[in-house]
Amino acid sequence: AGFAIVLEKKAAIFVDGRYTLQAELEVPAILFDHRTLSKNSYTDWISKNTKPGMILGYDPWLMTPSQIINYRVACKKSMVSLKPIHKNPIDTIWIDRPAPPSSPIFIHDISFAGQPIMNKFQQISDELKKEKIDAVVITTPDSIAWLLNIRGSDVPFTPITLAFAIFYVDQNIDLFVDQKKISPAILKHLGPNVRCHEPKAFSSILDTLDKKSVLLDQETVPIYVHHRLEATGANIQAGPDPCQLPKAIKTSIQLDGIRAAHIRDGASLTRFLAWLDENADKESITENSAAKTLEAMRLNNKNFKGLSFPTISGSGPNGAIVHYSVNKNSDRLLKKGDLYLVDSGAQYLDGTTDVTRTVAIGIPTKNMMRHFTLVLKGHIAIATARFPKGTCGSQLDTLARQALWTEGLDYEHGTGHGVGHFLGVHEGPHRISKSPNNVILKPGMIISNEPGYYKAGCYGIRIENLVCVMTGTSLHFETLTLAPIDRALINIELLEKSEIDWINSYHAKVLDKISPLVDKKTQTWLLKATVNL
Amino acid sequence: AGFAIVLEKKAAIFVDGRYTLQAELEVPAILFDHRTLSKNSYTDWISKNTKPGMILGYDPWLMTPSQIINYRVACKKSMVSLKPIHKNPIDTIWIDRPAPPSSPIFIHDISFAGQPIMNKFQQISDELKKEKIDAVVITTPDSIAWLLNIRGSDVPFTPITLAFAIFYVDQNIDLFVDQKKISPAILKHLGPNVRCHEPKAFSSILDTLDKKSVLLDQETVPIYVHHRLEATGANIQAGPDPCQLPKAIKTSIQLDGIRAAHIRDGASLTRFLAWLDENADKESITENSAAKTLEAMRLNNKNFKGLSFPTISGSGPNGAIVHYSVNKNSDRLLKKGDLYLVDSGAQYLDGTTDVTRTVAIGIPTKNMMRHFTLVLKGHIAIATARFPKGTCGSQLDTLARQALWTEGLDYEHGTGHGVGHFLGVHEGPHRISKSPNNVILKPGMIISNEPGYYKAGCYGIRIENLVCVMTGTSLHFETLTLAPIDRALINIELLEKSEIDWINSYHAKVLDKISPLVDKKTQTWLLKATVNL
Repeated sequence: AGFAIVLEKKAAIFVDGRYTLQAELEVPAILFDHRTLSKNSYTDWISKNTKPGMILGYDPWLMTPSQIINYRVACKKSMVSLKPIHKNPIDTIWIDRPAPPSSPIFIHDISFAGQPIMNKFQQISDELKKEKIDAVVITTPDSIAWLLNIRGSDVPFTPITLAFAIFYVDQNIDLFVDQKKISPAILKHLGPNVRCHEPKAFSSILDTLDKKSVLLDQETVPIYVHHRLEATGANIQAGPDPCQLPKAIKTSIQLDGIRAAHIRDGASLTRFLAWLDENADKESITENSAAKTLEAMRLNNKNFKGLSFPTISGSGPNGAIVHYSVNKNSDRLLKKGDLYLVDSGAQYLDGTTDVTRTVAIGIPTKNMMRHFTLVLKGHIAIATARFPKGTCGSQLDTLARQALWTEGLDYEHGTGHGVGHFLGVHEGPHRISKSPNNVILKPGMIISNEPGYYKAGCYGIRIENLVCVMTGTSLHFETLTLAPIDRALINIELLEKSEIDWINSYHAKVLDKISPLVDKKTQTWLLKATVNL
Repeated sequence: AGFAIVLEKKAAIFVDGRYTLQAELEVPAILFDHRTLSKNSYTDWISKNTKPGMILGYDPWLMTPSQIINYRVACKKSMVSLKPIHKNPIDTIWIDRPAPPSSPIFIHDISFAGQPIMNKFQQISDELKKEKIDAVVITTPDSIAWLLNIRGSDVPFTPITLAFAIFYVDQNIDLFVDQKKISPAILKHLGPNVRCHEPKAFSSILDTLDKKSVLLDQETVPIYVHHRLEATGANIQAGPDPCQLPKAIKTSIQLDGIRAAHIRDGASLTRFLAWLDENADKESITENSAAKTLEAMRLNNKNFKGLSFPTISGSGPNGAIVHYSVNKNSDRLLKKGDLYLVDSGAQYLDGTTDVTRTVAIGIPTKNMMRHFTLVLKGHIAIATARFPKGTCGSQLDTLARQALWTEGLDYEHGTGHGVGHFLGVHEGPHRISKSPNNVILKPGMIISNEPGYYKAGCYGIRIENLVCVMTGTSLHFETLTLAPIDRALINIELLEKSEIDWINSYHAKVLDKISPLVDKKTQTWLLKATVNL
């Protein structure tokens, strides 16, 4: 989430707002100007620090065609040009670089994946035929994982294996992956259509695509691939990775698994919330110990394969840091009068979860309750929205913010991101956010519903459930996540009757599904936590 | 709103959905395939009817760079290339072509325009300096009208003069316009910074921009200009026409004029509505005669300069045709049990109006009332919206549709378009619509608020007021249009208290502002029409 520009005598580092503080700590300001990442910031920096005629080099394996177009526009204003370089100078001086990961690939069983890979090949091939395309180069590991019903452990939290692939309209596939990761069972699973190669064979096989019509996703493909195909005389077609949309639209078998995973995951979170309610008043729980306790409660769940992202466990002012990650120095005791925000999730073979709850430690203030209730109104507005076919996520975003906007408040993050099926906890192409996004919401898509409010230096509030787009006379969402919402934080006077009805019926469902899976003590607690408003 | 592709033995015409029927009547189907305009439709047609290697010619004066990029993507799939042609073959055979219009230019007085042209020059020059730009080529007549405080009568309904201009960062301007349109008074008004040229001098002056950094709006400039500058060695910068945004943000002097124009215009519409209410039951009024009567009521208003668009006057099923234009064959008597929709507006020296009212002739059905009230709820949601700085129109669109969506209903047009100040009744760059638009709503922007519902073959409903973005603790809209909303069509049981409050306070304002301007009889009617719900 950032990049650097290094000139002969000056340099700058541009990082996402989440990492501004970290960059200041880790990157010496005597060498690098520090900038928050935005098109304006790098355009300005280039404009101030370059001279007309200068050439900036870039590593074509680390940039996409879309990014280079943006940089080119920025550079054009200063008459600076961009040029790909063949050897990244960082690689030359990076002597203690770790080896690339090479965890074994494992099969994502058909009982979870929902359809055999040959079905997917047929579907993608049909798409390519329609657009008169001979082949598509796929460079995103989650698309490859989906297409081939395989998973891996090359990176933390997301069960992918690092690989590239070329899919041909005749349903043959060249797969480029470290051969050490492939067992005979995997080879058998992949079948005769998939030819496995070492990654170093990638370039020479790209060269065989001369005169072919080749689809490249300009948002994700390294521009190296684009340049190589251009040089070889391929007819490049710009368009989205054809796996992206079918991967996002879950089948009914996948949805059954996802619902089941959410019940198990909700039971763990409910046990945690009951434990927290009983013990937080003693002021012996820290953010870090709470996160560890929650993780332990998920550990033995059926099909559990790990967390889906590092738990965000923030109390008081730490809760107001949207992407807070607790460490030794920041760790805080949960104290009476605090709000405590916990955003967590897990990877199960049958589904990926992501849920946020905000709870009051001790007695909340009126303002906390007002802000929580405004966020809750936004959450309910998304949960109960009805909308016609053809609606995009950005069209629904305002529903989540309207109650806050009316009081002059807002939150500086998106309202919802797509979620994979035992894959990335963030996946595209759909989302609910202020920024325009013209991906249509289709039945079977999973998306988070997570409005929030953050009072800097005081507290953070976020209420997040995953929802699934469902069909009917009009489209609507089914809420998948099952865990009680803290009643102590709700100011019922700010709610419409229809909103109270939603909370009551949601809590009735939570009680019904979760109660059978938890211990007696938690059952008793849950009964009280889900009583009608 | 359309285009044609003519091959050696085949041709197709692509028109906007509004003109599908007209094209079928006027363009022989034996010669032309008829298609509704969309990127898919022309991509498919090209794909089916061309062969790889073919070259399609286009007139570079009639296409923008953005359009050509889209056509190029469409053609690439079929390996067809595009090439500008130097002489449009239609011009060669069009022997009875009318001469271009050449109505005199007149000054838009500073008392209306709000600021002297030298201020505007300074503002645009500052913008260009910031972006290191030497000159901008402006090819949209409304931008030139705004920049130079001039108006004309070259086209119906919009008081513009056809012209091109080059604005230089040193605040000199080359203006290309038929010299017959320029009087000595206009020359004096334009001042020493503006050099007037005949349009034919345009190309050779473009050639003097070699090595200069030149801004071109890729959405509006003819690609001819882009090609010419490219050939001459200019450094082309893509970006929006710098007049667009300041033109859209009205000054307080302009807003005072616009408010005054809306009171006069509202008085005319109110007199019309009172007359209609008294006479429609007699079943002697037709759509056409109603439109004529309404026009006559505006005719003698102070500062009136004509209508701002052809009045849409549709009763019963004709009301369901969104861009209905009454003609001899379609003209219909307003009958009891009909809904009647009238969308009209005028050009005043101090402002441009655009208003739609839907009224019941006789007693409306329950369904009519339900649909009208759902549309009204959407209208009120926009009128009362509060939103933070940085919000774009497309973020508000859903508020206007939510009540309809909940019942599985919708309307197939935008919710709001920008409106000029004694200029185009449609102007950019902002709008409220489903399609993504990342123009931020700024205080001073005028926009229409016009949700609707159309029951094909039965009736159409639309409620349209112009609103202005206002500042405060959060942004909100001031409603400018003043005319009663038909109380007979409101089902009060479907409204929240806050919605009823808005209607009552809006009607109180209408009564207060309009009553002093209308005759006794209309006053009496207005008093009843605006009584509290």
